[in-house]
Amino acid sequence: MVSFDDVRVAAERLQGVSNPTPVLTSRTMNERTGAHAFFKAENFQRSGSFKFRGAYNALSQLDSSTKEVVTFSSGNHAQAIALVGLLLDIKSTIIMPFDCSDVKRAATFGYGAEVFPRDIAPSNRETEAHRMASSRNLPVIPPYDHPHIIAGQATVALEFLQDHPDLDILLVPCGGGGLLSGCSLTASALCPELKVIGVEPIGADDAARSFKTGVLQTVKNPKTMADGARTPSLGKLPFQIIKEFTHDIITVTDHALAYAMDFLLERMKILVEPTGALGAAALLMKEVDVEGKKVGVILSGGNVDLNKFRG
Amino acid sequence: MVSFDDVRVAAERLQGVSNPTPVLTSRTMNERTGAHAFFKAENFQRSGSFKFRGAYNALSQLDSSTKEVVTFSSGNHAQAIALVGLLLDIKSTIIMPFDCSDVKRAATFGYGAEVFPRDIAPSNRETEAHRMASSRNLPVIPPYDHPHIIAGQATVALEFLQDHPDLDILLVPCGGGGLLSGCSLTASALCPELKVIGVEPIGADDAARSFKTGVLQTVKNPKTMADGARTPSLGKLPFQIIKEFTHDIITVTDHALAYAMDFLLERMKILVEPTGALGAAALLMKEVDVEGKKVGVILSGGNVDLNKFRG
Repeated sequence: MVSFDDVRVAAERLQGVSNPTPVLTSRTMNERTGAHAFFKAENFQRSGSFKFRGAYNALSQLDSSTKEVVTFSSGNHAQAIALVGLLLDIKSTIIMPFDCSDVKRAATFGYGAEVFPRDIAPSNRETEAHRMASSRNLPVIPPYDHPHIIAGQATVALEFLQDHPDLDILLVPCGGGGLLSGCSLTASALCPELKVIGVEPIGADDAARSFKTGVLQTVKNPKTMADGARTPSLGKLPFQIIKEFTHDIITVTDHALAYAMDFLLERMKILVEPTGALGAAALLMKEVDVEGKKVGVILSGGNVDLNKFRG
Repeated sequence: MVSFDDVRVAAERLQGVSNPTPVLTSRTMNERTGAHAFFKAENFQRSGSFKFRGAYNALSQLDSSTKEVVTFSSGNHAQAIALVGLLLDIKSTIIMPFDCSDVKRAATFGYGAEVFPRDIAPSNRETEAHRMASSRNLPVIPPYDHPHIIAGQATVALEFLQDHPDLDILLVPCGGGGLLSGCSLTASALCPELKVIGVEPIGADDAARSFKTGVLQTVKNPKTMADGARTPSLGKLPFQIIKEFTHDIITVTDHALAYAMDFLLERMKILVEPTGALGAAALLMKEVDVEGKKVGVILSGGNVDLNKFRG
């Protein structure tokens, strides 16, 4: 399990290493939604997403004799592990899917990681990583189903709520649930009145179904532009924490995501990737009652393939 | 003329009205250029560019009986006058060229301005504005050739240098010279050792030629994607101030501008318009010796026509 103390210790570890990302506001967004919205811009985080936090929190706790790790990821976790590996002098070997974003694979490679593109089902990637790791006696650092990863991602909410303790609602993108579980746990410790709501693409709604039924659901070959949310299911540990501390999980369409990305770019002048815009899309579409409320939105990353974006 | 006291008073007027824009850094940019670069992000200013500052400083000094103003602008000044007019309850009538950016015209209209698209040479736009204004006894608020506009734009440097007084070089986009003249004046008062360098697109290099010859030069039908720098010449008052306080004016190609915009978007996750990226382009191309130097870069605006950008 993960405790709030783990989150505080993770924040100390990240001090001076991660970027204390800014919180942005937009008069136009407030006019359009009736909310008072605050955006935690993790697209300005090192490696371009919040994943840096968990990766650093996990890798910096490894035994100093560990000089190599293995992971599997569709993109942002891969980049984060590769960059942290570079900083801590730990070699990273990463299994990425064939269809992952070119820009994410290029960046991961650019940070010096060894990248294995594999044409295997997402659910088998983890098995493949463990096979590679065990044959060489290396640790696997999974993208979300790990207490050190969750405690690291939770520092997003810690930073956010320390600056803005009076939020009414917190909208958090949800893929494997590392960010959502960590932020829910943190909110419950710091601001028990705050409603934490996960946001998922409707084409990959396994987390919303899991939350509603209380039983872990999966999704096969999800169709969504939000590549970070194409995870086959919530992680087991994230799901446990989400069941206890998260208030709801809702969905948005890819059209809403595209609209939110354009709004963030055109009006707020920031680049946010589809998965990173899940919370903003829910706000813009008023998928929850935000009228007059202080709404925190986590913009979780900004690693967009500009060639695809330009169409 | 404009004095540094005018700049300080302008900053007081803008207190609580303009956004105190953030200063961003990028490890990748520093690695690539050898500089320690600091980016003043005026693309986060209200109306999407620094022009809000000059517009507010000018309109807030008008006689309270003035209920309408006339201006001429290719875009950002128009948007700024329109938004400030909305805030101060002053109607704005704006002559914009036919070929100005659609998004700038739409935003200007959206702020409630009356927009007159006119197919006239840039050099005649001013005459047309004065003709319209004089027939109705209204003041004309020009985009750069005005002491109140210059003092307002100068507050960009005032804010920047108050936070970063130890810069060695300041790179400033240059069109009509309102921003460059104001920032040069401010730097000379606050940081006399700081070298202020204007940056212009090579396809509209009238300011660089004016600076070198000491005589005001013009450019006809300039070819550049930097729409804010398609001004026919420096303003007379900006040129006077630039001759006294600016250290150099250099040029960059449109290719360098496009590269800089992509870098700012892909690596720094911010949207900057072509004119706004002039200083960043000069830095990336190392058009000046930046090795080991603290380089301030003003990113002057972010009003990009996304349809054209996606092109």
